[in-house]
Amino acid sequence: MQRILIKGCSILTMKTGEKPFVGDILLAGQRIARIAPSIDETADQILDGKGMLAMPGLINAHNHASMSLLRAFSDDLKLMDWLDKKMLPAEARMTKEDIYWGTMLGSAEMIASGTTAFADMYVHMDAVAEAILDSGMRASLTRGLVFLEDDGGRRMTEAMDLIDNYSGAGDGRITTMLGPHAPYTCPPEPLAKVVQLARERRIPIHIHLAETREEIENIKTKYNQTPTEYLHEIGLFQDNHVLLAHAVHLTSSDIQLLHGMKGGVSHNPVSNLKLACGIAPVTEMIANGITVGLGTDGAGSATTLDMFAEIKAATWLQKLGHGDPTVLPAEQALRMATIESAKLLGIDHEVGTLEAGKRADLILLDLNKPHLQPIHDLHALAAYSVTGADVDTTIVNGQILMRHRQLLTMSWEEVHTQSAKRAARLVEGL
Amino acid sequence: MQRILIKGCSILTMKTGEKPFVGDILLAGQRIARIAPSIDETADQILDGKGMLAMPGLINAHNHASMSLLRAFSDDLKLMDWLDKKMLPAEARMTKEDIYWGTMLGSAEMIASGTTAFADMYVHMDAVAEAILDSGMRASLTRGLVFLEDDGGRRMTEAMDLIDNYSGAGDGRITTMLGPHAPYTCPPEPLAKVVQLARERRIPIHIHLAETREEIENIKTKYNQTPTEYLHEIGLFQDNHVLLAHAVHLTSSDIQLLHGMKGGVSHNPVSNLKLACGIAPVTEMIANGITVGLGTDGAGSATTLDMFAEIKAATWLQKLGHGDPTVLPAEQALRMATIESAKLLGIDHEVGTLEAGKRADLILLDLNKPHLQPIHDLHALAAYSVTGADVDTTIVNGQILMRHRQLLTMSWEEVHTQSAKRAARLVEGL
Ligand SMILES: [Zn+2]
Ligand SMILES: [Zn+2]
Repeated sequence: MQRILIKGCSILTMKTGEKPFVGDILLAGQRIARIAPSIDETADQILDGKGMLAMPGLINAHNHASMSLLRAFSDDLKLMDWLDKKMLPAEARMTKEDIYWGTMLGSAEMIASGTTAFADMYVHMDAVAEAILDSGMRASLTRGLVFLEDDGGRRMTEAMDLIDNYSGAGDGRITTMLGPHAPYTCPPEPLAKVVQLARERRIPIHIHLAETREEIENIKTKYNQTPTEYLHEIGLFQDNHVLLAHAVHLTSSDIQLLHGMKGGVSHNPVSNLKLACGIAPVTEMIANGITVGLGTDGAGSATTLDMFAEIKAATWLQKLGHGDPTVLPAEQALRMATIESAKLLGIDHEVGTLEAGKRADLILLDLNKPHLQPIHDLHALAAYSVTGADVDTTIVNGQILMRHRQLLTMSWEEVHTQSAKRAARLVEGL
Repeated sequence: MQRILIKGCSILTMKTGEKPFVGDILLAGQRIARIAPSIDETADQILDGKGMLAMPGLINAHNHASMSLLRAFSDDLKLMDWLDKKMLPAEARMTKEDIYWGTMLGSAEMIASGTTAFADMYVHMDAVAEAILDSGMRASLTRGLVFLEDDGGRRMTEAMDLIDNYSGAGDGRITTMLGPHAPYTCPPEPLAKVVQLARERRIPIHIHLAETREEIENIKTKYNQTPTEYLHEIGLFQDNHVLLAHAVHLTSSDIQLLHGMKGGVSHNPVSNLKLACGIAPVTEMIANGITVGLGTDGAGSATTLDMFAEIKAATWLQKLGHGDPTVLPAEQALRMATIESAKLLGIDHEVGTLEAGKRADLILLDLNKPHLQPIHDLHALAAYSVTGADVDTTIVNGQILMRHRQLLTMSWEEVHTQSAKRAARLVEGL
């Protein structure tokens, strides 16, 4: 079993209430074997942690990784122009190979910015799964289900194939969910069937909720309900583990309906800001016992998949919304991007904190830089000044995916070439 | 005269309406000699621009650079706790040498994140000036003036000494302003004297305005006016060039009072978010013909001096505040950080765009990275995905201050050591 010893780094375990300390971390195979002030054991590889900060890898709870091919392609547009004139026509051209290379590009960015796991909903998810097996990342994959144009039968078949073929693949790195896309794309009857199936087979559900004002209007017109009431009535929050993306527009009674749910909410503040959706009631949801993690949504809206940008945006927005700089402090924002997101993916027993016995998913941040000196408070520094570019080393399941900013599980040159070529074709004439 | 030729880069000149293009840039001495699709001339040094994006260096219109020593020292606190219990006691311990090394640390961060010029207001400004002469940056320096504890005579003397001794120093890299600190620290009589003196000697003024709700209350109680009305009545906006920092809390009639002013407003969105001040009416000010640039404020509140973070925050906040994703598009946000900020510093005839004849203040961004590929729209990419860490080369006044991320005008090792040692002393026991 391969043993890696990281020597003399500062450590943020992200375990509740645990203060930063300097120490060593021993990895054995796919797991963390020990964390202690000093470990004198043999190892196959020793990583010098001097001047480095170790913390759990970040977990992106809502993504569409292949949309990285459409980064900075259509910004500063009205939501419907963005979607109808740019995103949907470009997405309609995507082949399975495009999806593979788009996911590799997204994975390259995530690994390079300290994200070790993510939840993804898209099409051609077998290609996404193959990219994950190749990149070495951890992911929870979901075939998006819409039931507007037809009965959604083909999509359901692909969704179940994904679950049957890839759950547990890559030494457990791949998990799966069922992905009814959103209240406005899933009418009651087929949605109820998906919820029922998910409950019987104990499959978690990943769904968009209450992202835009347009969605609130749409569901109000169709069902005279809020989107949250609509999902509640169908029974989604009774016994299913549910990953809700966005939840920007919730009433107080909507928040009550979510009280006690399994799973929770992925807050995606950068995308919400870029698309002018609004400020999600994160503080209120947390006060009501709802788990809130962080995600980026696709690079088509967020432009970048850097989770450190989401950490900043999340705490800024809550401070702004409440007119109170003490709201959502640094340590809590960092927890949202790690252990809270892990809960949403249902993998918090395996990752999300640094503890002996958990999977070895962690990052080393290089603090020897002007914007990270001097060091007063490591939580504040990590939340408010670190960016993805400060990640020196990324490890998933005990495998080093990036060392000194060199990607080790893919050829960046090849990913670069493939994504440039494919992206040009996708947007031609749009 | 030293000639530097940059070959084959993408170029954002930031001149209004000019599209990105690929070309060469020839620098001769302190100035840009030519920009063209292809330049075949000899040069002392050739920089390969392949895969790089050249743009004007960013201009930070409001900073207290030495506060970098207090980065991540006191976050997530109520404004008055932050100020009274942490910042002011630590600042009171600062010696002239601390200010010098704090400015070097701030300069190291700014150079490394693509900022080539900044406006600074603080104490011991001769030490700040010496740091600027050493670092090679461009700056507009201001001795902060408060008239609460005494008649401010000593500070006025230091302010005039700074202006007399350093204006035009460093081949014109240093300019100076007069710095009455804020409406709430400057009573009418001494403030009127400063304004009068500035008008007579044609010295620009740098002042904080309407940053917090507390300030609005304070001035209301003292003078039964808004802070803007207070400054207007004293005659500040009649004939002086004024750099206003913040301007978060303005009424519609306040905005009317600023119409036609010389100078304009430094918007500092990250600090405004961190301290939960609110959203400045940037769109409304611009619509009223007021020049709005971008600044960070000190790292004590903003944590980092990365202007690319301010660009993102500025456009996000206007989109959010107006519920409209088309507001403050990418190119306009980039202009705020370059030519608009240059206008605030009164140096837009010299810097802020890439044009033959202007000073050679520019940066090269390395686009060969996962989060910057593929390339669809360079303005959107630069505004929404680039961070300071993507800056490969920084040039000020024709001098290369950073090349391939190596700082060339200072020893980072020395700055690191000095700032760590001094910062520890400043915060001891606080
Ligand atoms: Zn989404
Ligand atoms: Zn300030």
